Amino acid sequence: MLQSKLIGDTKKEWPSEASVISHGLLLKGGYIKQMATGIYTLLPLGKKVVAKIENIIREEMNKIDAQEILMPIVATKKLWDMSGRYDSVGSELLRFKDRNNVEMVLSMTHEEATVFSLLNEAASYQKYPFSVYHIQTKFRDEARPRAGLIRVREFTMKDAYSFHTSQESLDEEYEKFFCAYNKIYSRVGIPQVVAVASDTGIMGGSGAHEFMLLCDSGEDKIVHCSSCNYNANMEVAYTSKVDVVNEKEEKIEKFYTKDIKTIEALKEYTNLKSENLGKAVIYKRLDTGKTVIVFVRADREVNETKLRNLLKLDDEALVPKKEEDADNIAYGFVGPINLKADAEIIYDKSLENEKSLVFGANEKDYHLKGVNILRDVGEVEYVDVSKVLETDYCPICHKKELSISNGIEVGNIFKLGDKYTKMLNMFYSDENGDKNFPLMGCYGIGVGRLFASVIEARAKDNKLNLPPSIAPFDIHICPLDYTKNEEVKNMADDVYNLLQEKGYDVLLDDRNKNAGVKFADSDLISAPIRITVSKRTIENGNKLEIKVFDSDNTSLVSKDELVKYIEDKRKEWVF
Amino acid sequence: MLQSKLIGDTKKEWPSEASVISHGLLLKGGYIKQMATGIYTLLPLGKKVVAKIENIIREEMNKIDAQEILMPIVATKKLWDMSGRYDSVGSELLRFKDRNNVEMVLSMTHEEATVFSLLNEAASYQKYPFSVYHIQTKFRDEARPRAGLIRVREFTMKDAYSFHTSQESLDEEYEKFFCAYNKIYSRVGIPQVVAVASDTGIMGGSGAHEFMLLCDSGEDKIVHCSSCNYNANMEVAYTSKVDVVNEKEEKIEKFYTKDIKTIEALKEYTNLKSENLGKAVIYKRLDTGKTVIVFVRADREVNETKLRNLLKLDDEALVPKKEEDADNIAYGFVGPINLKADAEIIYDKSLENEKSLVFGANEKDYHLKGVNILRDVGEVEYVDVSKVLETDYCPICHKKELSISNGIEVGNIFKLGDKYTKMLNMFYSDENGDKNFPLMGCYGIGVGRLFASVIEARAKDNKLNLPPSIAPFDIHICPLDYTKNEEVKNMADDVYNLLQEKGYDVLLDDRNKNAGVKFADSDLISAPIRITVSKRTIENGNKLEIKVFDSDNTSLVSKDELVKYIEDKRKEWVF
Repeated sequence: MLQSKLIGDTKKEWPSEASVISHGLLLKGGYIKQMATGIYTLLPLGKKVVAKIENIIREEMNKIDAQEILMPIVATKKLWDMSGRYDSVGSELLRFKDRNNVEMVLSMTHEEATVFSLLNEAASYQKYPFSVYHIQTKFRDEARPRAGLIRVREFTMKDAYSFHTSQESLDEEYEKFFCAYNKIYSRVGIPQVVAVASDTGIMGGSGAHEFMLLCDSGEDKIVHCSSCNYNANMEVAYTSKVDVVNEKEEKIEKFYTKDIKTIEALKEYTNLKSENLGKAVIYKRLDTGKTVIVFVRADREVNETKLRNLLKLDDEALVPKKEEDADNIAYGFVGPINLKADAEIIYDKSLENEKSLVFGANEKDYHLKGVNILRDVGEVEYVDVSKVLETDYCPICHKKELSISNGIEVGNIFKLGDKYTKMLNMFYSDENGDKNFPLMGCYGIGVGRLFASVIEARAKDNKLNLPPSIAPFDIHICPLDYTKNEEVKNMADDVYNLLQEKGYDVLLDDRNKNAGVKFADSDLISAPIRITVSKRTIENGNKLEIKVFDSDNTSLVSKDELVKYIEDKRKEWVF
Repeated sequence: MLQSKLIGDTKKEWPSEASVISHGLLLKGGYIKQMATGIYTLLPLGKKVVAKIENIIREEMNKIDAQEILMPIVATKKLWDMSGRYDSVGSELLRFKDRNNVEMVLSMTHEEATVFSLLNEAASYQKYPFSVYHIQTKFRDEARPRAGLIRVREFTMKDAYSFHTSQESLDEEYEKFFCAYNKIYSRVGIPQVVAVASDTGIMGGSGAHEFMLLCDSGEDKIVHCSSCNYNANMEVAYTSKVDVVNEKEEKIEKFYTKDIKTIEALKEYTNLKSENLGKAVIYKRLDTGKTVIVFVRADREVNETKLRNLLKLDDEALVPKKEEDADNIAYGFVGPINLKADAEIIYDKSLENEKSLVFGANEKDYHLKGVNILRDVGEVEYVDVSKVLETDYCPICHKKELSISNGIEVGNIFKLGDKYTKMLNMFYSDENGDKNFPLMGCYGIGVGRLFASVIEARAKDNKLNLPPSIAPFDIHICPLDYTKNEEVKNMADDVYNLLQEKGYDVLLDDRNKNAGVKFADSDLISAPIRITVSKRTIENGNKLEIKVFDSDNTSLVSKDELVKYIEDKRKEWVF
């Protein structure tokens, strides 16, 4: 098409609202337009790329025999009541009433809808296993939408659901989706995505992986072992052991610490390091109202996901307890000895075998030094509820080669089990005619976020650097002085017509702009082949200047050789 | 694919909830599943057909250089306030609040969103004209969803918007869309769709057409002139004149009509026909609160769309006035003579030149006969606010060859003018650098309704009879005794593999079902080519039985000739 007609103007300035590179480049390049908080329009360039990503996903889903369907975004409260999630999910589930006062939701995920759609559609065991998927709009009323397309409220998602008559069948299908996901990431240009063990969160179920693109702008923390390749989201990463720091036993001794209520203040006051101190982190569980006190060595943070999983609590059912909550706890001075609070007490693994730590004395303005839990409290159970550190031991190979990186989640897969089929009463008849609830897996990829992630991983300076598989155009022709030099115009038009006839999707920059503007815009459009036509082309015996996306060099190619040159180049690219 | 794996079971019984044939066949064939009132899931067969329809629409949009975008379904009240439609649209616009109490809507159309998306994206006149479109989910909170996919609440729509710097340019583009729409209807198998002049309703603007599929299950009434091909929706159909019925002048005379308040009762009482009577239809306009009385000859109905357009009132701003509304009107006995009500009086064209009619006497229990408006009331203005009858004169050729049919609206196009660009302050700089508001056109097709309409037009008995362009599979292989006869199975598998290798989308019925069930299901699946493999095939020297969708005959074709036979057949089909 002619660039003068392309809707979505490039912006001269870096957008001030952009917090990450993909957000900035998508706005600057005219790919997206913000409509409201966390809600965007895809302009033509954005839509072209997203359509290509969707097609790659669709192809990989079809290859593993998943059947495409389309479920609605609006669902009834009644449906979400069937799984209990209408009540258990927080305010990210958007609830409203229709004109007849019927309570409805905007779907943020489709487990209930899938099962309901399939009631009576797969009654015999012979249909199993099978999978369905759809690529559809979802709405999640995020508290803090951020970073352009990375965390939005309205988004397009591919979500697939598989159904099984045995755990082995679920495990096999899970593996197929796992491989299909890796193919998808490779084909859209980010083969470096890693799968990490993840929390099953509100979905329930027996196992889960997230696919993570490691990059600085990611919100998630990923723990990686370079020895055995163990990968896990920090939320569910464990360590096989924590080195003991304070090995020398000491006498217990109370000391005066007026107004010393934080670890920082205590370090300064005692001239000790964090690992010589113990801390108490205090929560309230909303199901019973009871207090939960976690003791942990002070160089470590409590991992609230692991803690919630230990306590079998939903996302929002555990909150930090505040000093203002009247009770008999000496906030800032809590320790394991003489603790009289009515609370569940949890000891983190980092405290095991420590012979001497400083802890609060459970008395205002006093701490104890020389605390030895085994000696002073007795036998207690130690559990792993703190965040893994790079200095910890890998839980699989027990080596000390962990590293922690930031990551963006670009997909997730879950083994759900029979939670939803049971609650919605979906069953099949087995070979004996008995009724059973099928097991389910679910598999999601956010399309817009995947697009933004590709940019996070691949963009350089102001170049989008998309791979040929998803670039909005195959070829970009940039003629200089197109509107002023007739020879240049004729040559560019000839090449444009030639390549369009060959079936390529070609963009011709027919605008009256200088070379700087044209090349800057071209970097934002990111076609894998750029052909420059200029006065020099004519002077050089009609040799066109060609630059391909995976090289910094330009080649000179005559018009006659052009089609073959492009065909050969494209064959080299595997996506 | 193997039919045993296809999700979406066919149902034995005709679905009791089906009110029209498409609704019944889509449920029976396992194409759709109802999730809530007016909300459906498309199961695999449904999704396949809809995807093909969407691709045909996409191709025709791309051919006229419309650029595809994707706008969100959730919009802010603030956006809809810019056009004033947040207040002017009724409760079919679903309004809700997000977690931060911001007022939002589910978009039922995207004029505001399109203009907002394009603010600052088309600043120079050189980009004009241009069009954008998207294929996206909409929600319209219908009071009475009905007829399966014909009138739903959540639906997928292709809506396009064009932008212009002159009326001529808008007219030209409108013509392009008009032609593209006709191509779309032809390609999906309903070339008989007609374009009719339509009301511009809440959209505003200078002209509009609806595309109508004429069929008994349609809700709209279409007026057609077989002489000049004039077509109009009843809502906006006019007549050039109405024949005078009561030509003989008579003396005016009051007569006693105790409790005779309806035309039916008056006809019986007087032994006259409807056309000898006049009636008064009484409304209240909500903008001023004032009463509106329409006088019309009693064989005709008031056309409320024409009346609202005459009064320049929105859809919901005119309501029937009830007798309970206290005023000085003698309900059931209202007429043009001695009328003392404080009301706007409107005389329908059907009263012009009538010399003697029975009307209410504006006095309880009395009517007048012999009413001659010219003689008894004086000169009044007659306007055309009644529904056209088949006995009327065509407004274009003035011949009396009108017919009225039912129709389903399968698309609409509007010339919007600058209403939305002005209200949202979208402008471009013209050649002199002056700022102007572009003119807009908008162009919509509901995808699901189009699918259902194709079925309404084409289905016969329990056969879906879809055209090859949108049938869910290219070829359906129906082997009889597949699970019991090894020769049949081998032959069917060979043919299946052969045709899949040739790139066709083939469904193989590998189920252990009898011929009756297989053929009934095949009729619902509606592949344009059906290949039957049976014991007879083997006995007949491996001649396959082939039936194509556009013929009632079957052909016997050997396996060796099969591919060529299919290729030749497909070349004959133009869609």
